[in-house]
Amino acid sequence: MKKNQSKWLPIGLSLAVVTILFLLAGPLSADEGMWTLDNMPMKQLKEKYGFEPTPAWLEHIRLASVRIGDGGSGSFVSPNGLVLTNHHVALGQLQKVSSAQKNYVSDGFYAPTLADEIPCPDVELNVLISMEDVTTKVLAAVKKGMDPVKALEAKKAAIANIERLSLKKTHLRSDVVSLYQGGEYWLYRYKKYTDVKLVFAPEQQAAFYGGDPDNFTYPRHDIDMALFRAYENGKPAKVAHYLKWSAKGAADGELVFISGNPGSTNRLMTLAQIQFQREFAYPLRLKYLERMLVVAKKYATKGPEEARQAAGMIFGIENGLKVSSGEYEGLKSAGILEKKAAQETEFRKLIDENPQWKAEFAGAWEQIAAAIEKQKLRLKELYYRRVPGMRLGGIALQIVQMVAELQKPDGKRLDGYHTAELESRRFRLFSPAPIYPGFEEALIVNSLMQMTEELGADDPFLKACLDGKTPEEAAKALLAGTKLADPALRKRLVDGGPAAVAKCTDSFIVLARRLDPLVREMLKWQEDNIESVTRPAGEKIGQARFNAFGKNAYPDATFTLRLSYGAVRGYAMNGTLAPYKTTFYGLYDRAESFDNKPPFHLPKRVAEARDKLDLSTPLDFVCTGDIIGGNSGSPVINTAGEVVGLVFDGNVESFMGRFFYDDTANRTVSVHSAAMMEALKKIYGAEKLAQEILGE
Amino acid sequence: MKKNQSKWLPIGLSLAVVTILFLLAGPLSADEGMWTLDNMPMKQLKEKYGFEPTPAWLEHIRLASVRIGDGGSGSFVSPNGLVLTNHHVALGQLQKVSSAQKNYVSDGFYAPTLADEIPCPDVELNVLISMEDVTTKVLAAVKKGMDPVKALEAKKAAIANIERLSLKKTHLRSDVVSLYQGGEYWLYRYKKYTDVKLVFAPEQQAAFYGGDPDNFTYPRHDIDMALFRAYENGKPAKVAHYLKWSAKGAADGELVFISGNPGSTNRLMTLAQIQFQREFAYPLRLKYLERMLVVAKKYATKGPEEARQAAGMIFGIENGLKVSSGEYEGLKSAGILEKKAAQETEFRKLIDENPQWKAEFAGAWEQIAAAIEKQKLRLKELYYRRVPGMRLGGIALQIVQMVAELQKPDGKRLDGYHTAELESRRFRLFSPAPIYPGFEEALIVNSLMQMTEELGADDPFLKACLDGKTPEEAAKALLAGTKLADPALRKRLVDGGPAAVAKCTDSFIVLARRLDPLVREMLKWQEDNIESVTRPAGEKIGQARFNAFGKNAYPDATFTLRLSYGAVRGYAMNGTLAPYKTTFYGLYDRAESFDNKPPFHLPKRVAEARDKLDLSTPLDFVCTGDIIGGNSGSPVINTAGEVVGLVFDGNVESFMGRFFYDDTANRTVSVHSAAMMEALKKIYGAEKLAQEILGE
Repeated sequence: MKKNQSKWLPIGLSLAVVTILFLLAGPLSADEGMWTLDNMPMKQLKEKYGFEPTPAWLEHIRLASVRIGDGGSGSFVSPNGLVLTNHHVALGQLQKVSSAQKNYVSDGFYAPTLADEIPCPDVELNVLISMEDVTTKVLAAVKKGMDPVKALEAKKAAIANIERLSLKKTHLRSDVVSLYQGGEYWLYRYKKYTDVKLVFAPEQQAAFYGGDPDNFTYPRHDIDMALFRAYENGKPAKVAHYLKWSAKGAADGELVFISGNPGSTNRLMTLAQIQFQREFAYPLRLKYLERMLVVAKKYATKGPEEARQAAGMIFGIENGLKVSSGEYEGLKSAGILEKKAAQETEFRKLIDENPQWKAEFAGAWEQIAAAIEKQKLRLKELYYRRVPGMRLGGIALQIVQMVAELQKPDGKRLDGYHTAELESRRFRLFSPAPIYPGFEEALIVNSLMQMTEELGADDPFLKACLDGKTPEEAAKALLAGTKLADPALRKRLVDGGPAAVAKCTDSFIVLARRLDPLVREMLKWQEDNIESVTRPAGEKIGQARFNAFGKNAYPDATFTLRLSYGAVRGYAMNGTLAPYKTTFYGLYDRAESFDNKPPFHLPKRVAEARDKLDLSTPLDFVCTGDIIGGNSGSPVINTAGEVVGLVFDGNVESFMGRFFYDDTANRTVSVHSAAMMEALKKIYGAEKLAQEILGE
Repeated sequence: MKKNQSKWLPIGLSLAVVTILFLLAGPLSADEGMWTLDNMPMKQLKEKYGFEPTPAWLEHIRLASVRIGDGGSGSFVSPNGLVLTNHHVALGQLQKVSSAQKNYVSDGFYAPTLADEIPCPDVELNVLISMEDVTTKVLAAVKKGMDPVKALEAKKAAIANIERLSLKKTHLRSDVVSLYQGGEYWLYRYKKYTDVKLVFAPEQQAAFYGGDPDNFTYPRHDIDMALFRAYENGKPAKVAHYLKWSAKGAADGELVFISGNPGSTNRLMTLAQIQFQREFAYPLRLKYLERMLVVAKKYATKGPEEARQAAGMIFGIENGLKVSSGEYEGLKSAGILEKKAAQETEFRKLIDENPQWKAEFAGAWEQIAAAIEKQKLRLKELYYRRVPGMRLGGIALQIVQMVAELQKPDGKRLDGYHTAELESRRFRLFSPAPIYPGFEEALIVNSLMQMTEELGADDPFLKACLDGKTPEEAAKALLAGTKLADPALRKRLVDGGPAAVAKCTDSFIVLARRLDPLVREMLKWQEDNIESVTRPAGEKIGQARFNAFGKNAYPDATFTLRLSYGAVRGYAMNGTLAPYKTTFYGLYDRAESFDNKPPFHLPKRVAEARDKLDLSTPLDFVCTGDIIGGNSGSPVINTAGEVVGLVFDGNVESFMGRFFYDDTANRTVSVHSAAMMEALKKIYGAEKLAQEILGE
């Protein structure tokens, strides 16, 4: 599952209203749910599968699970800090450690010894060490009679304070996460690893076999795996909790768990919010992505090195387009909105019938609908006013904002600059990963042209970007006048504080200084007019649900640790049945079926290994577990706590999983544990690595 | 492609109004059309593919093409009368030559020498020797001012006369076929082969791999082939025209032709007729088939021999259910009827705008709509009043009707009993194929119970069937009192004429004597009230189309020889791409993917041959050629006139091909010529047969 969130997009403004989350009404479908580890559906598990995870079992899984960067999942698979994840989660790092001379993305990588492992420039691994309910502390900040804007500020300050104190006390990354849209707040503490090295990756063509066409489909034939190693004090991290390996893998019908970090779902949106998605948010997003894909592909045609530079972004956009198109088509198809409308009507009827509930909660839906109407008035501005380019603009804006925010008390800062967030922020900001000026230029020109078309030449944000020039002139001037590709300069600016930034003449810093007030105005407007309304309204609906249905539910996804569960199981597809697994036979079949033409060609080593492989080895498989983007790289675990697979995708039928779950055809697609061993040993000559994983 | 027509159904009444055919309006989609050989789309072929078949090329293909029985197609593939077709076309014969001791359906069959070949009881092969336009002769029979009923009678008499004279003169099977719903009539003369032997068939599990689930889908992995041999004068028939073999097969994108006998299409139906299909015909048919499937499956559970007896019918019903359900779902889905309505509106507007056309043609649509309304009044009677059972009832009714009809002049007889039709009719009627009393009984009981439920206990037809007994008693009495399983008795009765039949006390003959007047009443009612209206109305619409659009069109399918053409080409499917071909790798993948569980298990010989096979050999493939049920067994031919494949199915996206053709995803599925050779040589040890086909 590729994360729907666009990791590679420049820092910009998201449609905050989109992410308001609500609790689900009514009983759950079979195998539904991305459950927090404090609230597993023990009854369903016991009744349906005869299995109840013990607290020790859950703790072990939690401590062996790894969140990766800002979009993926993984797990420890050896006592020496070996982390298993997807190739496409590692893709950004693979690209950053590659060069015009050595392309690890296309060629793969294997470090036979520790000395051969390559340091990654900017990946952070998080292990969830503890979970603490801080709902009472957060809510105590809001005093009776506070106006909505003040109340929101107070709550944010309380959260920042909790995080700061926890960090100070434990030295652990401390994030307060809002679950059940504010029905609960939890303090999650993470052990962080930032000294991470690359150990193994196959060729992208083996990992992403079938390319964009096969992405988000099944049957699949991908070895979408990569291995990092976490280091501590210059040595491989010793981890007490890691997952043992099941060489056999899961059988048809077997119960499995998925431990990972689903990014976001919208299952609890109100009807008004879903209608807004269908009519405004998706069309905007699709148009934006389609245009950027054209730009990236055009840049890639300039030569092999340009193609290498753009490859990651092209992968990301195609992935985003496929999932967004799928979700959009789903939303437009017959019956979906009617189903949501019926659910909402029923729920609201239940609330209206209880006078106390009615008085307390009934107004929330109209408040959200009104906020959406307000949002529509500035929709294009909020969407298109983005700092142009791929990385340099975002870096500059962060520097300008950071030195300003650090002057303020923690509770008053912009989100993202609170004390507890700074270490991770700096780590990314000072990343030595290479920057490609030619590619930046192409993206900046596109962005400026698009803003001109969408917002008109008089838009103040656009005018601040162009500074009187044409898009082409502006892009050239920006790139000619910057040295921000050097992380040392970034560090000097941040360390120099407001004075250093104020006198800096670097072109991107100058631009960021012009844009900063406009960005702040939009954030403020959004907070005062939208968030301060929709958050408390969402809370009310959440409380209404707690009242009406109890807590037999899971919160919408928040890119924090969740456990999903389900059975390994095929499904009805295309007029026939999709099998629960594929085999290596299928990989060679698909290649031959397309006459070995891209994107269905075999990498050289895979083609050559054919006669060495046991072709009946399971390759990929599906289960009913409930996931979404962000779960990429999650281990699939059997009841013995062993790795039986590695989540890497969902099928086309899972697209609507953003809005609801239906286990008739929604499936998680994973690499089979046996396939990973077969590939390591017989295709990639990584016998030693296989032994480490197998504990031999 | 399994023929949608149910070969195994007892003789009954079809909904004649359903088969009225109309010419298509507007320009054709790419690769659309089941073309008569006198009117190939030369311009399209030349423009799109740069190929124009010569008259000699067309004649060669025609004379090498074989129509098989009443539902399949095939081709000569050696100078010694070897006929290639599908296993599922040969299935009926395979079942009839099998016994409780030897099951050629499940085990396959191969005759290494001529002496080993098994005579088939009742299959007739037809080769189209000549085609003659007899439109003027047929239409001359209708005199000005004749009332519709008389006009229809006159036309039928003229047709019977043309056929009779042709038979007398040429001794060739002579059929007048109505094309463009009476816009043209053609006399087709066929050379007949009734001395046919079975040469080769794989196991049904290899031919129909994936069973009902995979049926009508793609990618596929079936070796759906069988070989007959036509004999003449006790020796293998020497045929001047046979198709050479292409061992290599067709390449991606290559132009191919399909020569075969598509059964029926409804592309030119009026909107009123399609609505009738959607609201009445399909629900009736589906309900009927679902019930019969239950009965057949229940019978099959009684034991292995019962399972063997019922296997063919179960295959047929499941096949029919899958295609009918697909067509029905398609008709119900959004946009289909709207599209048809828009086409019709546009066409009728064109006619109305020309005063002469308006006067001549404009009333036809209302006439058809009115006939449909009339048909609805007797719908259930016309559908459910069927002679009960599988074969015995139908045999008896044919005997009773035949001796009566033979007393009349040719032109006055019921359809099916004209002189030119008698030889084929007798051949089937006197077939020595085994009859299974237990299975007959189960089907008779079901039929009588269903009539009771649907028509009520007072229905005269039902009462005539039951003769005062319960369904179970009636069935038992019928089977206890008959010797019609013996073909010699049937022959004696027919030869004995009306007197012999009148005094016959065989229970089924007695029943047929009771039913015959009721059947005749229904046929007459249908002719006088429906056919006499819809046929001339259909002719009018056909003439209107000729006037408006010319003859750049093909007639709806009529189970006569047609050529389709198209490119070997994959398509977008299930969110990704379906390849243009599959390979043997895919077969072993699918088996392993389902842990070799039925219907995805490998037959023993296929499993054992794995290491001998070149697994990259193409297995099945798809092309855009336009086909429908009846095309089963058609050769796929390259421009050199060589066999590159063997049609056996369509994909799910082809279901709507009954109503319109759309080449984006509608595909013909064929066995690849290379797969057939690989299988013959390496799986079935039929090297000698392979050599005969390859001309070695």
